[in-house]
Amino acid sequence: MDLPVVLHALGDPVRLDLVRRMAAHGECACSPEGLSVPRSTLSNHWRILREAGLTDTRADGKARIMSLRRAELDAAFPGLLPAVLGPAGA
Amino acid sequence: MDLPVVLHALGDPVRLDLVRRMAAHGECACSPEGLSVPRSTLSNHWRILREAGLTDTRADGKARIMSLRRAELDAAFPGLLPAVLGPAGA
Repeated sequence: MDLPVVLHALGDPVRLDLVRRMAAHGECACSPEGLSVPRSTLSNHWRILREAGLTDTRADGKARIMSLRRAELDAAFPGLLPAVLGPAGA
Repeated sequence: MDLPVVLHALGDPVRLDLVRRMAAHGECACSPEGLSVPRSTLSNHWRILREAGLTDTRADGKARIMSLRRAELDAAFPGLLPAVLGPAGA
Protein backbone atom coordinates (compact mmCIF):
# COMPACT_ATOMS: atom_id res chain seq x y z
CA MET A 1 0.00 0.00 0.00
CA ASP A 2 1.15 3.49 -0.88
CA LEU A 3 0.28 6.28 1.56
CA PRO A 4 -0.56 9.05 -0.97
CA VAL A 5 -2.71 6.58 -2.93
CA VAL A 6 -4.51 5.47 0.26
CA LEU A 7 -5.08 9.10 1.33
CA HIS A 8 -6.37 9.98 -2.13
CA ALA A 9 -8.75 7.00 -1.99
CA LEU A 10 -10.03 8.21 1.41
CA GLY A 11 -10.22 11.84 0.27
CA ASP A 12 -13.75 11.84 -1.12
CA PRO A 13 -17.03 12.10 0.82
CA VAL A 14 -18.67 9.10 -0.87
CA ARG A 15 -15.62 6.85 -0.52
CA LEU A 16 -15.22 7.90 3.11
CA ASP A 17 -18.88 6.99 3.64
CA LEU A 18 -18.29 3.54 2.11
CA VAL A 19 -15.22 3.01 4.31
CA ARG A 20 -17.21 4.00 7.40
CA ARG A 21 -20.01 1.57 6.45
CA MET A 22 -17.49 -1.27 6.04
CA ALA A 23 -15.82 -0.37 9.34
CA ALA A 24 -19.18 -0.31 11.15
CA HIS A 25 -20.78 -3.40 9.61
CA GLY A 26 -17.79 -5.49 8.51
CA GLU A 27 -18.99 -5.63 4.93
CA CYS A 28 -20.83 -3.45 2.45
CA ALA A 29 -22.97 -4.27 -0.56
CA CYS A 30 -21.92 -2.73 -3.86
CA SER A 31 -24.93 -0.36 -3.84
CA PRO A 32 -25.72 0.28 -0.19
CA GLU A 33 -29.00 1.85 0.91
CA GLY A 34 -29.18 5.56 1.56
CA LEU A 35 -26.56 6.58 -0.98
CA SER A 36 -27.94 8.68 -3.82
CA VAL A 37 -25.02 8.11 -6.17
CA PRO A 38 -25.36 6.72 -9.72
CA ARG A 39 -24.33 3.08 -9.97
CA SER A 40 -21.52 3.83 -12.44
CA THR A 41 -20.10 6.51 -10.14
CA LEU A 42 -20.29 4.07 -7.26
CA SER A 43 -18.45 1.42 -9.29
CA ASN A 44 -15.70 3.93 -9.93
CA HIS A 45 -15.44 4.74 -6.21
CA TRP A 46 -15.22 1.03 -5.35
CA ARG A 47 -12.52 0.58 -8.00
CA ILE A 48 -10.43 3.39 -6.49
CA LEU A 49 -10.79 1.87 -3.01
CA ARG A 50 -9.88 -1.60 -4.31
CA GLU A 51 -6.88 -0.40 -6.34
CA ALA A 52 -5.56 1.47 -3.30
CA GLY A 53 -5.60 -1.88 -1.46
CA LEU A 54 -8.30 -0.82 0.99
CA THR A 55 -10.91 -3.47 0.19
CA ASP A 56 -11.44 -7.15 -0.48
CA THR A 57 -14.29 -8.33 -2.68
CA ARG A 58 -16.30 -11.54 -2.45
CA ALA A 59 -19.14 -12.77 -4.62
CA ASP A 60 -22.55 -13.54 -3.09
CA GLY A 61 -24.53 -14.96 -5.98
CA LYS A 62 -24.64 -12.14 -8.50
CA ALA A 63 -23.85 -9.50 -5.88
CA ARG A 64 -20.44 -8.34 -4.80
CA ILE A 65 -19.74 -7.73 -1.15
CA MET A 66 -16.85 -5.51 -0.10
CA SER A 67 -14.92 -5.52 3.15
CA LEU A 68 -12.22 -3.29 4.60
CA ARG A 69 -8.67 -4.72 4.72
CA ARG A 70 -8.40 -3.34 8.21
CA ALA A 71 -5.53 -5.48 9.53
CA GLU A 72 -3.36 -4.72 6.48
CA LEU A 73 -4.17 -1.03 6.69
CA ASP A 74 -3.46 -0.85 10.43
CA ALA A 75 -0.16 -2.69 9.89
CA ALA A 76 0.94 -0.41 7.04
CA PHE A 77 -0.19 2.91 8.56
CA PRO A 78 -0.77 2.59 12.30
CA GLY A 79 -3.33 5.04 13.63
CA LEU A 80 -4.54 6.21 10.23
CA LEU A 81 -7.88 4.40 10.19
CA PRO A 82 -8.84 5.37 13.78
CA ALA A 83 -7.97 8.99 12.97
CA VAL A 84 -10.08 8.91 9.82
CA LEU A 85 -13.04 7.09 11.35
CA GLY A 86 -13.06 9.32 14.41
CA PRO A 87 -14.31 8.49 17.90
CA ALA A 88 -17.53 6.91 16.61
CA GLY A 89 -15.87 4.45 14.26
CA ALA A 90 -12.47 3.80 15.81
CA MET B 1 -11.69 21.88 8.13
CA ASP B 2 -13.44 19.15 6.21
CA LEU B 3 -11.98 15.63 6.53
CA PRO B 4 -12.43 14.47 2.90
CA VAL B 5 -10.94 17.77 1.69
CA VAL B 6 -7.99 17.42 4.08
CA LEU B 7 -7.40 13.79 3.02
CA HIS B 8 -7.59 14.76 -0.63
CA ALA B 9 -5.05 17.53 -0.02
CA LEU B 10 -2.72 15.01 1.66
CA GLY B 11 -3.32 12.37 -1.03
CA ASP B 12 -0.59 13.37 -3.45
CA PRO B 13 3.14 12.55 -3.24
CA VAL B 14 4.31 16.13 -3.80
CA ARG B 15 1.84 17.65 -1.33
CA LEU B 16 2.73 14.98 1.23
CA ASP B 17 6.38 15.88 0.73
CA LEU B 18 5.60 19.58 1.33
CA VAL B 19 3.64 18.72 4.49
CA ARG B 20 6.55 16.59 5.76
CA ARG B 21 8.99 19.44 5.09
CA MET B 22 6.79 21.88 7.04
CA ALA B 23 6.40 19.38 9.87
CA ALA B 24 10.15 18.80 10.04
CA HIS B 25 11.35 22.40 9.67
CA GLY B 26 8.39 24.46 10.89
CA GLU B 27 8.19 26.37 7.62
CA CYS B 28 8.76 25.80 3.94
CA ALA B 29 9.69 28.13 1.10
CA CYS B 30 7.35 28.22 -1.86
CA SER B 31 9.89 26.42 -4.07
CA PRO B 32 11.92 24.22 -1.75
CA GLU B 33 15.21 22.65 -2.84
CA GLY B 34 15.25 19.10 -4.11
CA LEU B 35 11.80 19.13 -5.65
CA SER B 36 11.81 18.76 -9.42
CA VAL B 37 8.31 20.09 -9.96
CA PRO B 38 7.42 23.00 -12.26
CA ARG B 39 6.73 26.21 -10.39
CA SER B 40 3.15 26.45 -11.66
CA THR B 41 2.43 22.88 -10.54
CA LEU B 42 3.90 23.69 -7.16
CA SER B 43 1.71 26.80 -6.86
CA ASN B 44 -1.31 24.63 -7.52
CA HIS B 45 -0.24 22.15 -4.82
CA TRP B 46 0.24 25.00 -2.32
CA ARG B 47 -3.20 26.36 -3.23
CA ILE B 48 -4.84 22.99 -2.54
CA LEU B 49 -3.06 22.72 0.82
CA ARG B 50 -4.05 26.30 1.75
CA GLU B 51 -7.69 25.89 0.68
CA ALA B 52 -7.94 22.69 2.73
CA GLY B 53 -6.90 24.78 5.75
CA LEU B 54 -3.60 22.96 6.20
CA THR B 55 -1.24 25.92 5.83
CA ASP B 56 -0.64 29.50 6.83
CA THR B 57 1.28 31.85 4.56
CA ARG B 58 3.54 34.77 5.50
CA ALA B 59 5.46 37.13 3.30
CA ASP B 60 9.24 37.42 3.61
CA GLY B 61 10.12 40.21 1.22
CA LYS B 62 9.00 38.93 -2.16
CA ALA B 63 9.03 35.33 -1.00
CA ARG B 64 6.16 33.47 0.59
CA ILE B 65 6.82 31.14 3.48
CA MET B 66 4.32 28.41 4.36
CA SER B 67 3.76 26.70 7.67
CA LEU B 68 1.61 23.82 8.80
CA ARG B 69 -1.49 24.68 10.88
CA ARG B 70 -0.56 21.80 13.15
CA ALA B 71 -2.53 22.78 16.27
CA GLU B 72 -5.73 23.34 14.28
CA LEU B 73 -5.25 20.06 12.40
CA ASP B 74 -4.55 18.09 15.59
CA ALA B 75 -7.62 19.64 17.25
CA ALA B 76 -9.91 18.88 14.31
CA PHE B 77 -8.62 15.38 13.54
CA PRO B 78 -6.67 13.95 16.48
CA GLY B 79 -4.05 11.42 15.44
CA LEU B 80 -4.30 12.11 11.72
CA LEU B 81 -1.07 14.04 11.29
CA PRO B 82 1.08 11.60 13.36
CA ALA B 83 -0.40 8.70 11.33
CA VAL B 84 0.37 10.46 8.06
CA LEU B 85 3.86 11.64 9.03
CA GLY B 86 4.79 8.23 10.42
CA PRO B 87 7.33 7.42 13.14
CA ALA B 88 9.96 9.75 11.64
CA GLY B 89 7.80 12.85 11.58
CA ALA B 90 5.30 12.36 14.39
